[in-house]
Amino acid sequence: MVTAMHTKKFDITLKSVKRYLERSANLNIIRILDKTHPADIAHLFRHLSMEDKKRLFMIVRANDSLAADVLSELGEPLWDELVTDLDAQAASDIVQEMESDVAADFLGVLEEDKAQEILKLMKDDKGAREVRKLLDYDEDTAGGIMNPEVFAVEERVTVAEAIDRIRQSDEFEMVFYVYVIDHHRHLLGVISLRQLITSPPDLPLRQIMNPEPVYVTVETDQEEVAKEVEKYNLLAIPVVDAEHRLMGMVTVDDVIEVIREEATEDLYKMAGTDDEEITSKSAFKIARIRFPWLTATLVAGVLNSYLINSFQDALHKVIALAAFVPVILGMGGNIGGQSAVIVVRGMALGRIDTGHLFPVVFKELRVGLLLGFIYGNLLGLWAYYSFETPPLLGVVVGLSICASMLFAVLIGVMYPMLFKRVGIDPAVATHPFVTTSTDLMGIVIYFTIARALIP
Amino acid sequence: MVTAMHTKKFDITLKSVKRYLERSANLNIIRILDKTHPADIAHLFRHLSMEDKKRLFMIVRANDSLAADVLSELGEPLWDELVTDLDAQAASDIVQEMESDVAADFLGVLEEDKAQEILKLMKDDKGAREVRKLLDYDEDTAGGIMNPEVFAVEERVTVAEAIDRIRQSDEFEMVFYVYVIDHHRHLLGVISLRQLITSPPDLPLRQIMNPEPVYVTVETDQEEVAKEVEKYNLLAIPVVDAEHRLMGMVTVDDVIEVIREEATEDLYKMAGTDDEEITSKSAFKIARIRFPWLTATLVAGVLNSYLINSFQDALHKVIALAAFVPVILGMGGNIGGQSAVIVVRGMALGRIDTGHLFPVVFKELRVGLLLGFIYGNLLGLWAYYSFETPPLLGVVVGLSICASMLFAVLIGVMYPMLFKRVGIDPAVATHPFVTTSTDLMGIVIYFTIARALIP
Repeated sequence: MVTAMHTKKFDITLKSVKRYLERSANLNIIRILDKTHPADIAHLFRHLSMEDKKRLFMIVRANDSLAADVLSELGEPLWDELVTDLDAQAASDIVQEMESDVAADFLGVLEEDKAQEILKLMKDDKGAREVRKLLDYDEDTAGGIMNPEVFAVEERVTVAEAIDRIRQSDEFEMVFYVYVIDHHRHLLGVISLRQLITSPPDLPLRQIMNPEPVYVTVETDQEEVAKEVEKYNLLAIPVVDAEHRLMGMVTVDDVIEVIREEATEDLYKMAGTDDEEITSKSAFKIARIRFPWLTATLVAGVLNSYLINSFQDALHKVIALAAFVPVILGMGGNIGGQSAVIVVRGMALGRIDTGHLFPVVFKELRVGLLLGFIYGNLLGLWAYYSFETPPLLGVVVGLSICASMLFAVLIGVMYPMLFKRVGIDPAVATHPFVTTSTDLMGIVIYFTIARALIP
Repeated sequence: MVTAMHTKKFDITLKSVKRYLERSANLNIIRILDKTHPADIAHLFRHLSMEDKKRLFMIVRANDSLAADVLSELGEPLWDELVTDLDAQAASDIVQEMESDVAADFLGVLEEDKAQEILKLMKDDKGAREVRKLLDYDEDTAGGIMNPEVFAVEERVTVAEAIDRIRQSDEFEMVFYVYVIDHHRHLLGVISLRQLITSPPDLPLRQIMNPEPVYVTVETDQEEVAKEVEKYNLLAIPVVDAEHRLMGMVTVDDVIEVIREEATEDLYKMAGTDDEEITSKSAFKIARIRFPWLTATLVAGVLNSYLINSFQDALHKVIALAAFVPVILGMGGNIGGQSAVIVVRGMALGRIDTGHLFPVVFKELRVGLLLGFIYGNLLGLWAYYSFETPPLLGVVVGLSICASMLFAVLIGVMYPMLFKRVGIDPAVATHPFVTTSTDLMGIVIYFTIARALIP
């Protein structure tokens, strides 16, 4: 039996595979693969050089079903790289062996032409039709991530009959629930496997099912699907079409993937970049992804240089003023970013309610005031003692730090809430706006105070 | 039957509850609660003001078991606020009704004294002992998140007997797998519920079990637990002690929570703050959380002011140089941050392998060079055309932008890999080090080029 392995055993396996690859001892590798779980084989790929990856895949693909399993576990980043060498017939033989939701994901990352060719070459017409249907759904919806192979029986079937059918059907890999339908496939209810085996054998399912199952439609956003599964601690959620017909289900392992994906996406968005960077090899493409935020920084920088230049008189009088520009912008930008992250993520997790804005703003303001006071004093004192003239430089620096930190927390908490209300994704828009605003405002605050206090 | 509800119905329920709370129409609220899933009741709390939250909880707690369910669904952020008003006896009656892993989490957030008092007042001695044992485990380990109520039977038991036992045992809420043990509770194997019902009734479990189940130990880090469950698409993973005795299991819903938690934690860490901010009401506490990073910014700022001051001669000659300091630091800091996020998250997800450093560094360098070239030219031209003297200012600015962006991507990709290798958490350390280094290096690059080119 093929079972999972633990770290130590994995490391030994990895070493052996590497050695055998070097020696082209393919038979030895095949012997190892036979005893290794596809998830672990996929894991091996992650630790190999590109060249070894391709070599190992050449061996894996001798067995279409194994290749399908390993590719399913590998996930998007490597699909492209490994499949470019395959001709359409070989790819089609592998796709044939995949679960149809994985097959649809897989074909979705290939070029349109190649995907169509692979579909045409598939021997299993019914499978190909199913995959084609899945490809029509938006990939971020329940339809795009669901598995259409779902175990369902009609309401008049008895418990004993249902158990019998489960015994006979091995094409359904993940049976945790039995979905109950009418003869038009309308979803009527749900029963867990556990309920099923603890119920009297001759009762019809109608009498023991939960008649109001949680469900989503094919168009529900995947993030929403994840939230429902999470909220009710489900193992799978049924997916229905507009007529309430059962079309498939999304299982909890897909939900985990969605959650990881969305968290990563949020993180990247906040830094002004994108998931695609990892898979992309073109510097031009990556540059294009990073372009918007860097351009915002550039525009802010140009405005800044213009602003600073307009305060030339103050600078001419006290050249030492220039020395504190970076720290004033740095303190403001960082504390503003901290507040923004708290609010953006808090809203995404439903912990911060945009309906109750005031307590959040008030809390952040107290934090900003406290930290502004502390750091304003620290830096003011340092400026006073280390720069002999002018004596008021310390006061100017201290006041500016305090004021710009206070402004920064306010902006950091207000912008994301504002963006959310007007329907802009806060994860994308917040950071560029916060840093730009704090930079510009920091300069204005600093030089205005300087002009006023240093004659 | 209490079932889940959809958004529209939820909104109507929320409105009614708010109205009834206003009128203190408690009986009406009780009638609504009777028909509402605990997860939805918990959801109601998120949309109420603090005052209404407390009022609603007063009604919920009339039913200890409901209060336990709702508190389980609510999770940490609200526990503290809702329970402060309860005396120890009332709290103990509620804790009594919780699953023991939730009870342990719950008591873990209370003050030590109060938790001990609640435990002492519990009527169910066995339950209290179980909770006490769980409290001993580190809360970030498998022991800290596992559910000790796990369904296990001995190897010689037959399939029919096992099914019979499942029927009789309703204390086990989540039975997806049957764990097989010997008479010292050593974990021997596992069978899925589905396998069980499709196997011949009179076979002993020994003969059909998977004899090498994936497992973790009580000390395994929760992140590692999540990775195993995710890798093998499990619904639950058994937890064993040092003697390989079955101590409990971690179910997939707990794993989802861990994944959300860790993603959030990583996000906060990168911004130099912490999850605790959300639950904390004290500005002092929040200030302390944000202190390390802001202090790093301060120290960098002080060094920066010192550096800039040491270039006073250049500034005296060309006061316009000061105008471009912010944009040079900004462009470097942002592109460095982008590279850092890609690498930190890529390593956390296992997509970037620290063993193969060179391709990643090389890719980032190309990106940095390309973007540095573009933005260096843009800003250089702008400086040349908008500031008439000195004519070489544009060249100085352009070269500095390009050089500091290149330096920033290099730092952004090298630091996290370096931190990971020496065992420092890259999510915490990377950003402060990247911004500090790019700031200082940016200043040095800029003024050195200025000194060299502008006589």
